[in-house]
Amino acid sequence: MNPIIERFLVVRKHSEAICKRLLLEDYSVQPAVFASPPKWHLAHITWFWEAFILVPFAKDYKIFDDDFSFLFNSYYNNAGKRVLRPNRGLMTRPSVEEVMNYRQHVTEAVVAFLKSSPDGEALEIVEIGINHEQQHQELLVYDIKYILGNQPTYPVYGSGYETQAEQQHPEWIKGKSGVYEIGHAGKDFCFDNELGRHKIYLQDFEISNRLVTNGEYLAFIADGGYQNFNYWHDEGWQWVNQNGIKAPLYWHQVEGDWYVYDLDGLEKVDPEAPVKHVSFFEAFAYAEYRGMRLPTEAEWEISSDHFQWGTLWEWTNSAYLPYPGFSKAPGALGEYNGKFMVNQMVLRGASAATSEGHARKTYRNFFHPDMRWQYNGIRLAK
Amino acid sequence: MNPIIERFLVVRKHSEAICKRLLLEDYSVQPAVFASPPKWHLAHITWFWEAFILVPFAKDYKIFDDDFSFLFNSYYNNAGKRVLRPNRGLMTRPSVEEVMNYRQHVTEAVVAFLKSSPDGEALEIVEIGINHEQQHQELLVYDIKYILGNQPTYPVYGSGYETQAEQQHPEWIKGKSGVYEIGHAGKDFCFDNELGRHKIYLQDFEISNRLVTNGEYLAFIADGGYQNFNYWHDEGWQWVNQNGIKAPLYWHQVEGDWYVYDLDGLEKVDPEAPVKHVSFFEAFAYAEYRGMRLPTEAEWEISSDHFQWGTLWEWTNSAYLPYPGFSKAPGALGEYNGKFMVNQMVLRGASAATSEGHARKTYRNFFHPDMRWQYNGIRLAK
Amino acid sequence: MNPIIERFLVVRKHSEAICKRLLLEDYSVQPAVFASPPKWHLAHITWFWEAFILVPFAKDYKIFDDDFSFLFNSYYNNAGKRVLRPNRGLMTRPSVEEVMNYRQHVTEAVVAFLKSSPDGEALEIVEIGINHEQQHQELLVYDIKYILGNQPTYPVYGSGYETQAEQQHPEWIKGKSGVYEIGHAGKDFCFDNELGRHKIYLQDFEISNRLVTNGEYLAFIADGGYQNFNYWHDEGWQWVNQNGIKAPLYWHQVEGDWYVYDLDGLEKVDPEAPVKHVSFFEAFAYAEYRGMRLPTEAEWEISSDHFQWGTLWEWTNSAYLPYPGFSKAPGALGEYNGKFMVNQMVLRGASAATSEGHARKTYRNFFHPDMRWQYNGIRLAK
Amino acid sequence: MNPIIERFLVVRKHSEAICKRLLLEDYSVQPAVFASPPKWHLAHITWFWEAFILVPFAKDYKIFDDDFSFLFNSYYNNAGKRVLRPNRGLMTRPSVEEVMNYRQHVTEAVVAFLKSSPDGEALEIVEIGINHEQQHQELLVYDIKYILGNQPTYPVYGSGYETQAEQQHPEWIKGKSGVYEIGHAGKDFCFDNELGRHKIYLQDFEISNRLVTNGEYLAFIADGGYQNFNYWHDEGWQWVNQNGIKAPLYWHQVEGDWYVYDLDGLEKVDPEAPVKHVSFFEAFAYAEYRGMRLPTEAEWEISSDHFQWGTLWEWTNSAYLPYPGFSKAPGALGEYNGKFMVNQMVLRGASAATSEGHARKTYRNFFHPDMRWQYNGIRLAK
Repeated sequence: MNPIIERFLVVRKHSEAICKRLLLEDYSVQPAVFASPPKWHLAHITWFWEAFILVPFAKDYKIFDDDFSFLFNSYYNNAGKRVLRPNRGLMTRPSVEEVMNYRQHVTEAVVAFLKSSPDGEALEIVEIGINHEQQHQELLVYDIKYILGNQPTYPVYGSGYETQAEQQHPEWIKGKSGVYEIGHAGKDFCFDNELGRHKIYLQDFEISNRLVTNGEYLAFIADGGYQNFNYWHDEGWQWVNQNGIKAPLYWHQVEGDWYVYDLDGLEKVDPEAPVKHVSFFEAFAYAEYRGMRLPTEAEWEISSDHFQWGTLWEWTNSAYLPYPGFSKAPGALGEYNGKFMVNQMVLRGASAATSEGHARKTYRNFFHPDMRWQYNGIRLAK
Repeated sequence: MNPIIERFLVVRKHSEAICKRLLLEDYSVQPAVFASPPKWHLAHITWFWEAFILVPFAKDYKIFDDDFSFLFNSYYNNAGKRVLRPNRGLMTRPSVEEVMNYRQHVTEAVVAFLKSSPDGEALEIVEIGINHEQQHQELLVYDIKYILGNQPTYPVYGSGYETQAEQQHPEWIKGKSGVYEIGHAGKDFCFDNELGRHKIYLQDFEISNRLVTNGEYLAFIADGGYQNFNYWHDEGWQWVNQNGIKAPLYWHQVEGDWYVYDLDGLEKVDPEAPVKHVSFFEAFAYAEYRGMRLPTEAEWEISSDHFQWGTLWEWTNSAYLPYPGFSKAPGALGEYNGKFMVNQMVLRGASAATSEGHARKTYRNFFHPDMRWQYNGIRLAK
Repeated sequence: MNPIIERFLVVRKHSEAICKRLLLEDYSVQPAVFASPPKWHLAHITWFWEAFILVPFAKDYKIFDDDFSFLFNSYYNNAGKRVLRPNRGLMTRPSVEEVMNYRQHVTEAVVAFLKSSPDGEALEIVEIGINHEQQHQELLVYDIKYILGNQPTYPVYGSGYETQAEQQHPEWIKGKSGVYEIGHAGKDFCFDNELGRHKIYLQDFEISNRLVTNGEYLAFIADGGYQNFNYWHDEGWQWVNQNGIKAPLYWHQVEGDWYVYDLDGLEKVDPEAPVKHVSFFEAFAYAEYRGMRLPTEAEWEISSDHFQWGTLWEWTNSAYLPYPGFSKAPGALGEYNGKFMVNQMVLRGASAATSEGHARKTYRNFFHPDMRWQYNGIRLAK
Repeated sequence: MNPIIERFLVVRKHSEAICKRLLLEDYSVQPAVFASPPKWHLAHITWFWEAFILVPFAKDYKIFDDDFSFLFNSYYNNAGKRVLRPNRGLMTRPSVEEVMNYRQHVTEAVVAFLKSSPDGEALEIVEIGINHEQQHQELLVYDIKYILGNQPTYPVYGSGYETQAEQQHPEWIKGKSGVYEIGHAGKDFCFDNELGRHKIYLQDFEISNRLVTNGEYLAFIADGGYQNFNYWHDEGWQWVNQNGIKAPLYWHQVEGDWYVYDLDGLEKVDPEAPVKHVSFFEAFAYAEYRGMRLPTEAEWEISSDHFQWGTLWEWTNSAYLPYPGFSKAPGALGEYNGKFMVNQMVLRGASAATSEGHARKTYRNFFHPDMRWQYNGIRLAK
């Protein structure tokens, strides 16, 4: 088979595979503004194919349902009006079955289109579409965990997403001062925010070869880390107090012992495993407590060949800002990245929830500093 | 069959019948804090039987699931902790199927219990349980309409709930000043808030024999009723402006014409039908516009034999307050009515969504003055 | 002197006398949305004279400052746009001195007008103006206390406003069932909400001859009254928990003992004095705790000749609703009372902060059920 | 005189000079959470001297008033509890007179202390104290303008703060790629966030020799800049719509023409003068509209010798983050800068409101991206 068709079909099937253990009741709920219902994800990534490939490029394509653009556009102002984000969880219609029909309709149409020898411009957007669907696959895992983790009954989902990094003997990797290059090079796909490859100057630094463990983080809690304002950003301290934060997300204290909910159920916290689901505020406070700091994204990228990464995203102390020469694409796809470059922090690496083939060391993930439902951990620098 | 068992079974089946046209996706969503998911209603009314009949009275009853008391208690502080109201829509588990199994389990257990010749105290609570389930049946209709009415696609549900009062030739019924009695008398079931029957003094009054029509209400809109503060309570005027209210709930203006969504779909507003889904603020403002007023609940009750009622609840200008001698039941059932006797207004009558056998002229329904998802209309007095 | 001029001047001077111990800094601050700066009161009641007497009736009257109508209108939509209530505390200009000049200008103009033999219509509004200024005098005392009570330093203001009712030997006054009349009669001034005198029917009742004391209320606190939801309205219970309410307003617990701030400074709570500054929610909860209830406004009015009243307003369990036949005045003065007749509760009596000659037993004061900065106490009924 | 004493006295007097045209009524008001009352500033900067110099270093110093630490601490958690920021405007006591006495008491005690040959550690904190007071002098100007600018009467304050940069003929200054050094060097005072001097790598860039003018900005408005989401960050677009932003702060449209309030009163917008009081969101959007960008703080610092600066702060596109090797001071002064290094953007330069001797090209000012009451403008880069 045409390799692009094969990749396309693998990706499409994987989105559905992620959801296959859900009950029908789990598909439509939106437990927080930042999370989306699985049904919405499945439909939205399908709409993306329809809106950016089929409608503009595929001759004679017939839109599946005229309402779906309004229902399943996420944030592309250029692509028209849409259901507001906080209301995604109110959409009980279309049904899951109808969304699955929509998926099949669009998948078949894209395959037909790919067989028709599309031109280079279209193929570039196909590549974006594949990567876009992979991004939503990771969000699907976050949101499924958040939906199930908010059930008072802590249901077991069962999957491979909770695999842990094997923890190394702790060592410090030295980085030497000097001029380096970061950013994406070569012809493989990358997002616009990774371009262009450019020089930066780094000072001497050291970066840990492993992630902070639950055991180390438990010491921070036991030492009153959540009660000592000296470790926290001013906004972090407000966040802690306004939300009554006392531990990472999904942690529950039961008769003095700490338990953690994950997709395999509620279990005692494993002190050897890396801590996960902490906000940037918490990662920063933990580093302060240790008298260290978080790495910058450039330090991380430069030294990433020298440590294991990829089971958990890692907060950096770099704000999400444009690289020199950044320019956004024309039209709706120009809204993909650039308009988020304020008030967010960069995460580097990848996680066990990242789809195969989607990770690279120049990848710039980003979240607001209070977000922690994503799969992430803490790596220290000094 | 034992008549109480027969009534019990009729009521239980009716709850499920109300939901039978729902998609599975519609059962779990909570589109507003004041509304609840249909699944929650079905489970909560079942929990009520379990908590107030089976657990205290039925020997050897085995609780279906220990978690359900936490999940499906509504507001009975005396019955333990519970899922907070705004979070009812996050509960994807238990599934609808499991809730239906719960219903069957409890229905069978109550039937077995009723066959065991229960004593009078238990039978009184059975009566409350039946009426409680009927109240939730009406709320189920409101919430189903609200869930579907918030779908951008306005799905058709189809049912008999949108039947309209046949509009009479308008006439004014005169009430003469003097001492009257209101409140429930006799041995039939009533809620504690209808007791006891007591004297009141009424001045001369007149009350309309029919409800305000859509056509009449359209004139209010056309005359700038929503823009003229003189018709409104100070809080009503804030409510109009903060929420951008321009018409009754479910009304939509399409190219200059007013349409209304109901369970039969989106249709043009029928000027002959009574206006429905207006808040107390709107009902009051409309009466001011007409130079009239809303009736008091006593005026309504005294004159209710002289006009048709029962297809729509009717706002009165009476605050929901205790009757003389009101006393609440001991324990959790004491929380049924009394604790809501502040900041709410009384509605009288019944609606097409009221379950058979549940209406009576002494019935005191009540909602906050901004609520309008219930089936209600406007009757004028002067 | 013309008696109406004399009364007018006494009232004008009294407003300034209330403020005379304030520092200039105290005049402009607004510590809560429901309170207003003293400077605003002094200017607003002056604007009222200007807008409703001088401008419509006094020939050749020259408006003091064209901006002041915008600055000092309170809530009369019919009288034009105005500074929004939450922003009253931002008005540092005009200065206190300028407001005092405004007062003098308007006082002199009204005196001149009163000497010109005004007609009956104008004299009626003069009477409203006098009563309006007296109402604001009482609010001035509340707001001054609230401003000073929110200073961490608890400054002493010193005045006669904290005099206490002499507490009688407790007795129950019996009221017999039957038809009574309530509401204002005769030719003396009253507000539109007290008209017209009308018949009501009362059941047998008993009402206490004295107010609940601090000592009795301390027992409620000690018995866990603020922790037991059974005593509270559902909304009262939310109010207690959302605001962390543990005692009446101005009470402070210092090393286990209860102190109360009043205009004479911070002192130990006197168990013999009547409890004051409690919300309707607290008054209701206290009555529930005692197995009693609050009186209705009709019960209060009928029996008010048989007990002492007048040092503290008293919550009733009557919602603030129109009397039969209530009609509001045309124009802006029609906004005086009617538009507040929803979601508020009636208080009867008067307080030590009520201006001389302003109290009468038919007076209907009203506040939202969570308000407690007014001078009020609790009288029980059963 | 001892030069440090002389500098100290000059700075102390300047704080009072800034306020000298205020009415007493203007001193205590807090028109927004981010602004503070002038009285509070005057007392807080005095408390800073007392808490960090007099109490720890000056033998026999007697605290002026024990309550003032609670009242006038700003955000130093290490220095004890304090009045919460939103409540600063409620403090009518102490009076302005008492605060002035407090100032004199502390000024005299610091002079006496400075005469006593203090050691180097104390002198370092004296230097911080001087710079701290200068920072509040600038904030005083911002807050005075905001207080007066919120008066519906637009009072004239009159001062030299509204002087404008003389606008040059527009030119682009070229910066060449390569390794540069930024950050503070030498022994003069600087804040901890400017240390230490370090290498960075810059790409080729161009930076404008002048600020964007009102005339240029008016074109952006006229071209629909506030209505076109393509120019805005996602959060900026929300900010525009939630706050109804249509122009810079203090701009008012009167019958089609744009006016601007400044300390000299309300005047027509001068198209030649630089635009001021725009948020980072607006500065960014304007740059997007022009197809350009804002400079980074490193670009600004490197090229600042080649253009005029100093009458308005300038937004950069750099997030406020620690320089390599940043470490915060021990104790309360460690809270000065570091805990704000998240979610804020760097501004470079100085303004006409900056105190003499306080400006330097390594200075890192910072504000949240929605703030615009500070004196700032826009410089473009590409």
